[in-house]
Amino acid sequence: MSAMGKPLILSDLLHTCERALELARDVRITLHKAVTARVAPGGKVDGALFEENQHSAHGYAWYATYVAALEQMLEWGKRLEAAGRFGELEQLILQAAYSEYLHQIYGGIPMSQGEYIRLADFGIEVRQRQLMQSPYTTLLREHGFTAACKKRISELVADGHFGDLGMDDETLDMIRDQFRKFAEDQVVPYAHEWHLKDELIPLSVVEQMAEMGVFGLTIPEEYGGLGMGKMAMCVVTEELSRAYIGVGSLGTRSEIAGELIRLGGTEEQKQHYLPKIASGEILPTAVFTEPNTGSDLASLRTRAVLDGDTYTVTGNKTWITHASRSDMMTLLTRTNPDEKGYKGLSMLLAEKPRGEEGNPFPAQGMEGGEIHVLGYRGMKEYELSFDGFKVPAANLLGGVEGQGFKQLMETFESARIQTAARAVGVAQNALEIGLRYAQERVQFGKQLFAFPRVHQKVAWSVVETMIARQLTYFAGREKDADIRCDIEAGMAKLLAARVAWSNADNALQIHGGNGYAEEYQISRVLCDSRILNIFEGAAEIQAQVVARGLLTR
Amino acid sequence: MSAMGKPLILSDLLHTCERALELARDVRITLHKAVTARVAPGGKVDGALFEENQHSAHGYAWYATYVAALEQMLEWGKRLEAAGRFGELEQLILQAAYSEYLHQIYGGIPMSQGEYIRLADFGIEVRQRQLMQSPYTTLLREHGFTAACKKRISELVADGHFGDLGMDDETLDMIRDQFRKFAEDQVVPYAHEWHLKDELIPLSVVEQMAEMGVFGLTIPEEYGGLGMGKMAMCVVTEELSRAYIGVGSLGTRSEIAGELIRLGGTEEQKQHYLPKIASGEILPTAVFTEPNTGSDLASLRTRAVLDGDTYTVTGNKTWITHASRSDMMTLLTRTNPDEKGYKGLSMLLAEKPRGEEGNPFPAQGMEGGEIHVLGYRGMKEYELSFDGFKVPAANLLGGVEGQGFKQLMETFESARIQTAARAVGVAQNALEIGLRYAQERVQFGKQLFAFPRVHQKVAWSVVETMIARQLTYFAGREKDADIRCDIEAGMAKLLAARVAWSNADNALQIHGGNGYAEEYQISRVLCDSRILNIFEGAAEIQAQVVARGLLTR
Ligand SMILES: Cc1cc2nc3c(=O)[nH]c(=O)nc-3n(C[C@H](O)[C@H](O)[C@H](O)COP(=O)(O)OP(=O)(O)OC[C@H]3O[C@@H](n4cnc5c(N)ncnc54)[C@H](O)[C@@H]3O)c2cc1C
Ligand SMILES: Cc1cc2nc3c(=O)[nH]c(=O)nc-3n(C[C@H](O)[C@H](O)[C@H](O)COP(=O)(O)OP(=O)(O)OC[C@H]3O[C@@H](n4cnc5c(N)ncnc54)[C@H](O)[C@@H]3O)c2cc1C
Ligand SMILES: CC(C)(COP(=O)(O)OP(=O)(O)OC[C@H]1O[C@@H](n2cnc3c(N)ncnc32)[C@H](O)[C@@H]1OP(=O)(O)O)[C@@H](O)C(=O)NCCC(=O)NCCS
Ligand SMILES: CC(C)(COP(=O)(O)OP(=O)(O)OC[C@H]1O[C@@H](n2cnc3c(N)ncnc32)[C@H](O)[C@@H]1OP(=O)(O)O)[C@@H](O)C(=O)NCCC(=O)NCCS
Repeated sequence: MSAMGKPLILSDLLHTCERALELARDVRITLHKAVTARVAPGGKVDGALFEENQHSAHGYAWYATYVAALEQMLEWGKRLEAAGRFGELEQLILQAAYSEYLHQIYGGIPMSQGEYIRLADFGIEVRQRQLMQSPYTTLLREHGFTAACKKRISELVADGHFGDLGMDDETLDMIRDQFRKFAEDQVVPYAHEWHLKDELIPLSVVEQMAEMGVFGLTIPEEYGGLGMGKMAMCVVTEELSRAYIGVGSLGTRSEIAGELIRLGGTEEQKQHYLPKIASGEILPTAVFTEPNTGSDLASLRTRAVLDGDTYTVTGNKTWITHASRSDMMTLLTRTNPDEKGYKGLSMLLAEKPRGEEGNPFPAQGMEGGEIHVLGYRGMKEYELSFDGFKVPAANLLGGVEGQGFKQLMETFESARIQTAARAVGVAQNALEIGLRYAQERVQFGKQLFAFPRVHQKVAWSVVETMIARQLTYFAGREKDADIRCDIEAGMAKLLAARVAWSNADNALQIHGGNGYAEEYQISRVLCDSRILNIFEGAAEIQAQVVARGLLTR
Repeated sequence: MSAMGKPLILSDLLHTCERALELARDVRITLHKAVTARVAPGGKVDGALFEENQHSAHGYAWYATYVAALEQMLEWGKRLEAAGRFGELEQLILQAAYSEYLHQIYGGIPMSQGEYIRLADFGIEVRQRQLMQSPYTTLLREHGFTAACKKRISELVADGHFGDLGMDDETLDMIRDQFRKFAEDQVVPYAHEWHLKDELIPLSVVEQMAEMGVFGLTIPEEYGGLGMGKMAMCVVTEELSRAYIGVGSLGTRSEIAGELIRLGGTEEQKQHYLPKIASGEILPTAVFTEPNTGSDLASLRTRAVLDGDTYTVTGNKTWITHASRSDMMTLLTRTNPDEKGYKGLSMLLAEKPRGEEGNPFPAQGMEGGEIHVLGYRGMKEYELSFDGFKVPAANLLGGVEGQGFKQLMETFESARIQTAARAVGVAQNALEIGLRYAQERVQFGKQLFAFPRVHQKVAWSVVETMIARQLTYFAGREKDADIRCDIEAGMAKLLAARVAWSNADNALQIHGGNGYAEEYQISRVLCDSRILNIFEGAAEIQAQVVARGLLTR
């Protein structure tokens, strides 16, 4: 009940959302047609038209992401309802998610700050836009996320509980508890100092994580892993990233290498490498990006020339995370120089000695230099140059040349889901830090949290973090079936990255001047969160992947 | 003409904008009434209701800011038209500004990321919202800022010209040129290194600026200044901040001290201090904020006790910029402990010796420690503690106790306009850095700038920077009349700070991974830009000042 005695929660909420979702799905279909007419007038997507109409094509990806998010939120609500756990907070979160996202669907979705996509951009005119709404969408928009609703959400989360996650899986709950405890004890108290000193995360932490199975989480049991699904990966990643993105990212390169080998490796490669990756004995690093080649990975130029049973690698790579303190590179190279596109690429499993202080790259034929970064510290990034670096031919992933790019693309799905989960963890952290500060700081004789502009920021962060989380879990569940899900993974990564960034931005604002002091954690979290829109496929690339997938499959 | 041969610029553009503006003004009036009904049901603003309805009250400030911005953009267009300089770029900028801001007026204005204010939040229902539009607003919304318009804007700015500023003042043009040249030569090549090394801006730069008259720009000629208006302050600040926010901010504390003394000082104080401030002989620092008192300045606690002809100061201050390398503090203290509110405050002009390395605060009764910050470096910030620090009674500003807060509030108007101009300079810098990178970087065989998602970001930055600039100039012109203009100053600061932040965010995104490297300037500009929403009155406080002003005066 609101202060005025009017109920805050709409009657028949699930039904109302369901009906609104139908409309949102119709919008999506209308946009699909509108974009198809622009970019595939002849039935097949035309590259030039797709590029010319990038704004509406990518915009469509965003619309579809919102609709998928609303679908997942409704599923979540229904699951909770069925389990008798659809409480006041959960109902308000669902209602708020629908209210705000419907507002944005009809009024404009921010793809980045100031960069909107709107129905008008698809050539849908005012009258038609009005017809695309219904009493259900109007009800949710006008009454679903009022100032009173925001206030009530803020009251309900004041004790640090942010709503039932709707997991329904005891193992996952146990895993979450275990990793939360580890993170609270071993990471939270130290992370900020690691960041400020720009230090590597201590090996002792890496070793503890290895013991807890982080690096073998999704590797099949027969190869020494825990054989768990992507949902477990999401939960572990989320909890570690909630403490520190650096720690939540320690597993990323193991996930990439593990997935590359699991999906594309020969049996020998699986037997040799997977157990070592799973145990943490081998820490891998992912070596793809080059100085002139980031988003357009297919055109990379680092050469690997086969001579007898050895590849000789020449070329430059950059932005390689954890490159020094790692034992193996998943190294994407061009083995066929006549093939300029993706078909000329191959993935090498290139072993290297671990670097040490003063000698970060002891291998023959390989040098490197550190890149200093705003955030996402803890593993360090490097430029690498290869000149006559040797890799045995037996270490060609899958044993056949020319497969590297597709092997990687399949793997990226998992990496992007993992990245979405990192973003959810960071988003959650930001919102909790903001909430705590708002409760502690007094101004004008009151907790900051008492002021609407402050608690409303927190309330929306609570809601949108849940949205990003449910969409991420959805992608994780889809991927468990080992079917292509670059669309779902892309959507989750796209949305979660934006949510982490806006949560951090708002939590910093709540800190006022203190947010700008390096001493306060939120200053780090802001910097950390900024990476999520850039790596593992920048936001624009993610939208591209989603749009192309939707329009061509 | 667009590629399709359809003209990009609406026929009768100025007239169309004028008619749309009428509607926007009506919206503002409607909102004024709606908010008044909520917060001043009895005719007078009720503090508790104002706070309870903060979202719509602050939202109204944002709406009014948008309307004021559209007014100023139209004025700008008309001035250019009259002067025969309303070219294609300028027309497209005007049209884009109207298109996008009208979209936001009807669809939602972001007060911060994810924090929207919409007509629905004022209780205005769907049907009424539809009636608030007209064919003019629809035309501008649907056709004013299409993908083709964005592309054309990006083509027109590709050579580094961003539209006629509409100054019509040769002196100001000369000043701009002079400071641009100085900034390009003396600041741009070094700023990034000062930032990375976290160094003070060299005194030689400060001295050159003193020679150029920066510190006495707005001080009357009779007191040794240049006697120029706030427009000159805006132009100088904008150009210096375009090079580096630190340099653009060197004059801020002189402007504050100069304005405090000019408006509130005794004749002796004016004669003694103003010439020294104007010449740069005295570098002042502004000492207001306390650890427990930032936004709510009126409740500060640092005590100044008068004994004979000396005040003894006790208490803690924090976040004091340039505190060490400065010669005088404008020190806000409580002289009357029985008055807990603003009436107990007095401003002291407290001299102090300049600090040196190893001895940052040589004065008796005063200590300090540095606060490390994300950006806005170059002058350094400090916590200060006073314990028995002495100030002669003659240094009480204006010679009468209890005036400090109002003296400061008047002065803040000027400081906030100056801050808005800093934001415009930073916004401009960000957009230029983003543009250059987009032109240099090739991906997928093309300049990044060729991709719509990239050049559209730049196009909107061009437009919105012009909007923020025109609104800032407006506030500057108003202030020149020495009438209360906290509303106009607040609006300019509110909007320009958001624009600087979103420009920086988007320009960083255009850099991809490189944007995250400390080596690249944009990583600094992102950090620098984040301060603008916090200091000189945080965004929420600015909205509060504007809303209260609009509703009570
Ligand atoms: C901290 C950090 C860690 C990293 N770790 C690794 C690692 O371990 N291994 C590794 O291989 N790489 C790593 N990367 C690299 C990362 O994957 C790339 O930065 C990313 O893929 C983007 O590539 P880019 O930086 O070259 O940007 P670019 O490709 O140059 O893109 C710049 C901008 O242009 C946009 N853009 C590009 N093409 C288009 C288009 N066609 N249409 C519209 N917009 C477009 C992008 O979205 C982006 O906004 C890391 C990067 C960072 C910053
Ligand atoms: C780099 C830097 C330089 C600075 N330089 C100086 C200087 O030279 N001299 C000086 O005196 N000060 C300086 N400041 C201090 C600055 O002016 C304050 O940080 C600012 O006024 C905000 O105060 P605060 O930090 O205490 O935030 P708080 O007042 O604690 O506010 C925290 C958050 O709560 C919000 N909030 C507060 N009250 C309300 C309300 N009633 N309703 C809704 N929201 C509310 C704020 O908007 C903000 O988002 C500087 C600060 C920084 C970071
Ligand atoms: C931009 C990008 C999406 C690829 O674009 P592209 O060069 O146009 O490549 P395509 O999308 O045409 O894909 C090439 C082939 O791979 C296939 N492919 C792409 N994604 C796939 C997936 N998820 N699963 C299986 N196959 C996939 C395509 O179907 C295509 O095969 P086809 O020619 O047989 O149809 C890719 O380069 C990318 O993800 N870049 C970002 C890089 C990144 O994330 N780096 C992070 C490093 S940490
Ligand atoms: C929040 C804030 C706006 C003042 O709020 P407040 O304490 O409620 O004070 P009020 O607005 O009631 O103002 C107090 C008095 O000053 C007057 N006043 C306020 N602004 C004024 C102005 N621009 N010109 C003249 N008088 C002004 C008011 O009219 C009022 O006088 P009255 O009692 O005679 O009517 C102020 O504390 C503020 O600006 N905080 C931000 C601090 C800041 O910017 N710090 C930057 C340091 S670098």
